[in-house]
Amino acid sequence: LNSLRKKYTVKIVTEVIDVRHIEIMSNMVDILQVGTRNMFNYELLKELGNVNIPILLKRGMCATINEYINAAQYILQSGNDKIILCERGIRSFDTSTRNLLDLSSVAIIKEETNFPIIVDISHSLGRKDIILPMARASFAAGADGLMIEVHNNPNNALSDASQQLNLEEFELFIEKLNRSID
Amino acid sequence: LNSLRKKYTVKIVTEVIDVRHIEIMSNMVDILQVGTRNMFNYELLKELGNVNIPILLKRGMCATINEYINAAQYILQSGNDKIILCERGIRSFDTSTRNLLDLSSVAIIKEETNFPIIVDISHSLGRKDIILPMARASFAAGADGLMIEVHNNPNNALSDASQQLNLEEFELFIEKLNRSID
Amino acid sequence: LNSLRKKYTVKIVTEVIDVRHIEIMSNMVDILQVGTRNMFNYELLKELGNVNIPILLKRGMCATINEYINAAQYILQSGNDKIILCERGIRSFDTSTRNLLDLSSVAIIKEETNFPIIVDISHSLGRKDIILPMARASFAAGADGLMIEVHNNPNNALSDASQQLNLEEFELFIEKLNRSID
Amino acid sequence: LNSLRKKYTVKIVTEVIDVRHIEIMSNMVDILQVGTRNMFNYELLKELGNVNIPILLKRGMCATINEYINAAQYILQSGNDKIILCERGIRSFDTSTRNLLDLSSVAIIKEETNFPIIVDISHSLGRKDIILPMARASFAAGADGLMIEVHNNPNNALSDASQQLNLEEFELFIEKLNRSID
Repeated sequence: LNSLRKKYTVKIVTEVIDVRHIEIMSNMVDILQVGTRNMFNYELLKELGNVNIPILLKRGMCATINEYINAAQYILQSGNDKIILCERGIRSFDTSTRNLLDLSSVAIIKEETNFPIIVDISHSLGRKDIILPMARASFAAGADGLMIEVHNNPNNALSDASQQLNLEEFELFIEKLNRSID
Repeated sequence: LNSLRKKYTVKIVTEVIDVRHIEIMSNMVDILQVGTRNMFNYELLKELGNVNIPILLKRGMCATINEYINAAQYILQSGNDKIILCERGIRSFDTSTRNLLDLSSVAIIKEETNFPIIVDISHSLGRKDIILPMARASFAAGADGLMIEVHNNPNNALSDASQQLNLEEFELFIEKLNRSID
Repeated sequence: LNSLRKKYTVKIVTEVIDVRHIEIMSNMVDILQVGTRNMFNYELLKELGNVNIPILLKRGMCATINEYINAAQYILQSGNDKIILCERGIRSFDTSTRNLLDLSSVAIIKEETNFPIIVDISHSLGRKDIILPMARASFAAGADGLMIEVHNNPNNALSDASQQLNLEEFELFIEKLNRSID
Repeated sequence: LNSLRKKYTVKIVTEVIDVRHIEIMSNMVDILQVGTRNMFNYELLKELGNVNIPILLKRGMCATINEYINAAQYILQSGNDKIILCERGIRSFDTSTRNLLDLSSVAIIKEETNFPIIVDISHSLGRKDIILPMARASFAAGADGLMIEVHNNPNNALSDASQQLNLEEFELFIEKLNRSID
């Protein structure tokens, strides 16, 4: 972890699930995340308009792209324009991946709005073997960044071990990704 | 059209919908296409194992990736290994695009099989404004080619006008796409 | 409306969307409703364990049946056992109805839990022509009641006019429904 | 089986998957079935307009209700009006049942068309514990009959054992169902 700290800027992102926690949390972390289960929680979104730190708003698990953009507008219109969207896949009948990664949403949001958007490839794919091509595809579709799960020992992870990279896998992933983008 | 003929190799692709047409059609066209409505038509697939020209097999509108690979195996095991897969989006609740383009399927098929796969961005998106980023994303995910609808006068097209490029739009699209890939 | 008041017991049901409103609302209404957008809002659910009035918990628009039962457990385990579930349809690709009414969920919940469950046929169907057979089917599947939208002048309704019955249609509907159940 | 033969009229229903088999099969069986994988196989449907026995047309696994009605029209317009529709559930994200049984489709088809429609509760549910309420709900929604899997020894069944009734379970099921309908 220390070697990562030297190479990367580390930001603390924490999920907020209760309007009564916003004030205290916004003084302790760098970014407040709204999880997929709360994208339609409009009261939470409106209150997040009052904080000064960025909000990472994940897409609801079956939200349409229009509903997703609309949710971001709740935060924006309440006064906070530091909004980062995050595509994380939607529910479908196919269990090949954990959620169905929708990269059209990335292209449409870049076309129709000014919001930055990142792609949570770990949660959407739920498997590690295709993260490199899907990371490349995310950037090609217009994504401004990635969310990717890394654990110093995935086998001991409390959840989602199958989708987590260990530190060496992560370094290798970043190296290959950089090579393909340059 | 003539200028296109000079610059590109033109192949005639025709959809086959009846086992009794296979023999005569396979002598007249370059590629036989199995449409999304017939991906689960196993009798048709088995008969296509007997022809010598390539088969373009489109994904069923709600086929899982495993079912799709399995459909290709029907052709392969019947004797024809000239198979081209074609991701064309699946059905979902979101009407932002015509079908939900699933690029994970491209990455998984490239990872797990040796089949070439192309992406039908016109049918999956049903709109023209995001075809450039989605074409780039398709190649980044591993696609071997694209299917894209071009019409010399989309306003007179019998169907799907909103997703069709005219010849100038197509030339511009190819130019931009080449620039981003080089 | 007055004639309805004479024939039926009238209860006031209001949707609660903010944990900070629970206390004051629970003193003013008969039943607190959790809408489909908040079924996954676990903090709200936990707080509703502390009130003494019944909670009407609508199914999330793409919640699995297991997730739905689990959401009810949040309220139950926080101390309130007066829970009424409400199937209201889930999202699908078919636009014939507004949401896809899932009556298997009713049968499964009656089989696996002790929660009462009603069916919101107005929101799920979004059309009036099939409410009678679907009301009968709801009861046959095991439903304990129905939610149905009635408006004294649907044409002036602020929303969802196409699915609302006027008072005469409602009286006729109840009469026919009673006849088929007796 | 013999005791069943004495009590019930037995009809032989066989799935047809190839246009070249129609003629011979139509002389050997009572009813020709088109399976869910072939609902969009329009050439097969058109040929079935030429036979004199009834066609049991199952709904495609992700066909809209309109597409389903349209498929039946192909048979009708080719000359065969002996069509029986069969709702068998559609694909969804919820694995509580094998397919999501859509009883609104039954009500809509009875409202908008003159086709008889039955419900395949075995294939749609994939479990036995809720077949009784769902059978009742199917009739309440307007179904003209049921399709239900029975096997003299489900544990030895080649497929789908978990959804099959043995003969005693079937007798009991019919008895309870009759009691609730009378």
